[in-house]
Amino acid sequence: MTSEGHQEDIDIAAHMALLGQQARKASGWLRSSSTGQRNAALAAMADELSQQRDMLMEANARDMARGRDNGLSEALMDRLLLTPARVDAMIAGLETVAALPDPIGGIDEMRTQNNGLRIGRMRTPLGVIGIIYESRPNVTVDAAALCLKAGNAAILRGGSEAFESNCAIARCIASGLEKAGLPGHAIQLIETTSREAVGALITARDYVDVIIPRGGKSLIQRISEQASIPVIKHLEGLCHVFVDRHASLDMAAEIAFNAKCFRYGICGAMETLLVDQPVAEDFLPAMVERFQKAGVTVRGCDRVQKLADVEPATEEDWLTEYLGPVLSIRVVDDIEVAIEHINHYGSHHTDAIVSDHFGHAQRFLAEVDSSSVMVNAPTCFADGAQYGLGAEIGISTDKLHVRGPVGLEGLTTRKYIVLGDGHVRT
Amino acid sequence: MTSEGHQEDIDIAAHMALLGQQARKASGWLRSSSTGQRNAALAAMADELSQQRDMLMEANARDMARGRDNGLSEALMDRLLLTPARVDAMIAGLETVAALPDPIGGIDEMRTQNNGLRIGRMRTPLGVIGIIYESRPNVTVDAAALCLKAGNAAILRGGSEAFESNCAIARCIASGLEKAGLPGHAIQLIETTSREAVGALITARDYVDVIIPRGGKSLIQRISEQASIPVIKHLEGLCHVFVDRHASLDMAAEIAFNAKCFRYGICGAMETLLVDQPVAEDFLPAMVERFQKAGVTVRGCDRVQKLADVEPATEEDWLTEYLGPVLSIRVVDDIEVAIEHINHYGSHHTDAIVSDHFGHAQRFLAEVDSSSVMVNAPTCFADGAQYGLGAEIGISTDKLHVRGPVGLEGLTTRKYIVLGDGHVRT
Repeated sequence: MTSEGHQEDIDIAAHMALLGQQARKASGWLRSSSTGQRNAALAAMADELSQQRDMLMEANARDMARGRDNGLSEALMDRLLLTPARVDAMIAGLETVAALPDPIGGIDEMRTQNNGLRIGRMRTPLGVIGIIYESRPNVTVDAAALCLKAGNAAILRGGSEAFESNCAIARCIASGLEKAGLPGHAIQLIETTSREAVGALITARDYVDVIIPRGGKSLIQRISEQASIPVIKHLEGLCHVFVDRHASLDMAAEIAFNAKCFRYGICGAMETLLVDQPVAEDFLPAMVERFQKAGVTVRGCDRVQKLADVEPATEEDWLTEYLGPVLSIRVVDDIEVAIEHINHYGSHHTDAIVSDHFGHAQRFLAEVDSSSVMVNAPTCFADGAQYGLGAEIGISTDKLHVRGPVGLEGLTTRKYIVLGDGHVRT
Repeated sequence: MTSEGHQEDIDIAAHMALLGQQARKASGWLRSSSTGQRNAALAAMADELSQQRDMLMEANARDMARGRDNGLSEALMDRLLLTPARVDAMIAGLETVAALPDPIGGIDEMRTQNNGLRIGRMRTPLGVIGIIYESRPNVTVDAAALCLKAGNAAILRGGSEAFESNCAIARCIASGLEKAGLPGHAIQLIETTSREAVGALITARDYVDVIIPRGGKSLIQRISEQASIPVIKHLEGLCHVFVDRHASLDMAAEIAFNAKCFRYGICGAMETLLVDQPVAEDFLPAMVERFQKAGVTVRGCDRVQKLADVEPATEEDWLTEYLGPVLSIRVVDDIEVAIEHINHYGSHHTDAIVSDHFGHAQRFLAEVDSSSVMVNAPTCFADGAQYGLGAEIGISTDKLHVRGPVGLEGLTTRKYIVLGDGHVRT
């Protein structure tokens, strides 16, 4: 390591510690802020974005120019781009979050114990949230809004390609906070593109309560392996639809087609179709043809291959999240084998059964170990907006804390409150 | 490393993978087990323990003899000892857990979306839980009972001093499971005292969903630093009582005394007493004398030293969980400084205010960032039994997933269930 390199490490460590201390202090202030103040800050941020459009577009133009020079792909360039419509969408997003009910302060499970102590649980902010995301400038606004609404301070680290756009947005956010009488440090952007800053953020146990990475699987996997503080993560969506022997086959066809073809690239897209043996012959030939006509490559187990003209599926297929126009199909002996297949090969994200049989539906709901389990609906519904969460920070594939689409509640915790009248323990 | 050492590593890795696979498989079976079956297993375990008393006492006698030879401390020998009364307590514990309501299968927040989809959240087992604990044989039974009741498989790793006692108890547990028609592998004890086994357990991402260490702070800290799967942990309890200017001083004296002296060694014991400046002169002299008469060494800030004959408190004192007959006292300017002190120096475990002022009580409840926040009650009430949880696996000092005393609910997760009628997404 060169002495410059060493010098830079020290500066970044000190800088990150400063951000952390500021965030921790701001989170204390937010804990005593009112719902009205936090909503006023969201409104003021929206105003700032609206008034600073020119500044935002200029900053984004510089990011776009640098991206072009660096040969970014079309897809990345599109994510990076800010248009007037996208700025409008960011402003509308702030207004949506401001209109959601305040998740903080609610008390439930309040009960009186035999000795007269009243004990309940109060919902409170988590504290300081670190968010690491790729180069979509709108995430800067979304993440800030959700964290603030739930009473948390946030430290944001966006992709380096969007650096100037993010800095411009962060100035609007800080200004909105201060106009509402809240500390500007409540939402801080890491204003360096150094990788060491990410390392410091995900190990800052004293300052950060949870990390939420947003982006591709490899980013999230790397972050969660290296972090020493809890991570709320969204890994794979290897989703299944099981067509039970008691399914309405017309309904099953619509659901299976929608689950695959609504959008290939979303995490709720079906990757494997399981078909109960007694209905396979009636169901599969037309279904496979429909998929193939839509441009989907179909791979099947031995029994599927006897019913339709498909590629052979290998063990590897049952383990693959295609995120594209490929589908694997397996004929199973019964619901038990279907559930075993899903729990063994799946990613515990979202899985569906199509069945008119009450007992089979109940069994599938109880035994499939996934964050969302569906009956007679396609897996592509797995989404915070569809679930009525109002806004979503991500979809958790963890089992602890939050599971499935994560709204404001996932950014909070609950503490016990104990109300006495001079009780003592004997 | 010798070649034998290397050989042992391989065997242990393979052995732990086998335990993991067996646990994962058993957890699938438990997912489809009924409440009645799980309760029957708990009853059958109690029967087995009762019938196998002689075998248990003999195994324990061998552990005790080895402990004496190895020079274990009196305290450790006492924890290790099984007596007929302690076996009775284990049996009673199983009956208590069997009588608790089943935490699994409950559905809440069920709502109908605009499109007619019904979406709710169902409580389900976590899956496989790894429990690592010190040499108290009763924990083997307690942990097994709570995990099983919540539908989880468990892999238990007890302290090596209790090895033979734990093996004997584990045979009773397995036999009870099988008598109720559940897989004996649902609860497995690691039957080796090798340290590598712990390392394998806490990194077995494919097989274990969560680790719960029970024991001293150093054990828990080491486990949570080395684990690559989530850990529910109980670290420090550096608890405060704040006597507000609006407190009834008689009540405050009883609460402060009880918080410190109910038991010095529990995590809910008060370690620092904060006194509001306007009442310090009236309150402190008699209070300090009462503590000193009870054998408590009192250390105080400058202002306390002017009011009573105490040792000086240093910065270090505000950061120390004494777990013994020592108390630090600080006079603070007002409730704001008290809250700052608690959030800065405390361990976010349990903190109390004594006050008759409504606004001050509300503010303390909202702004103190601890797992339990109390009004007019001593911190020593922080305990699952006192909170009506029925049984407690530990007290979590984490903010995510569970916070404070952890009962059966902490051993579960919730999945979304989505009920449709052939809905498709457009």
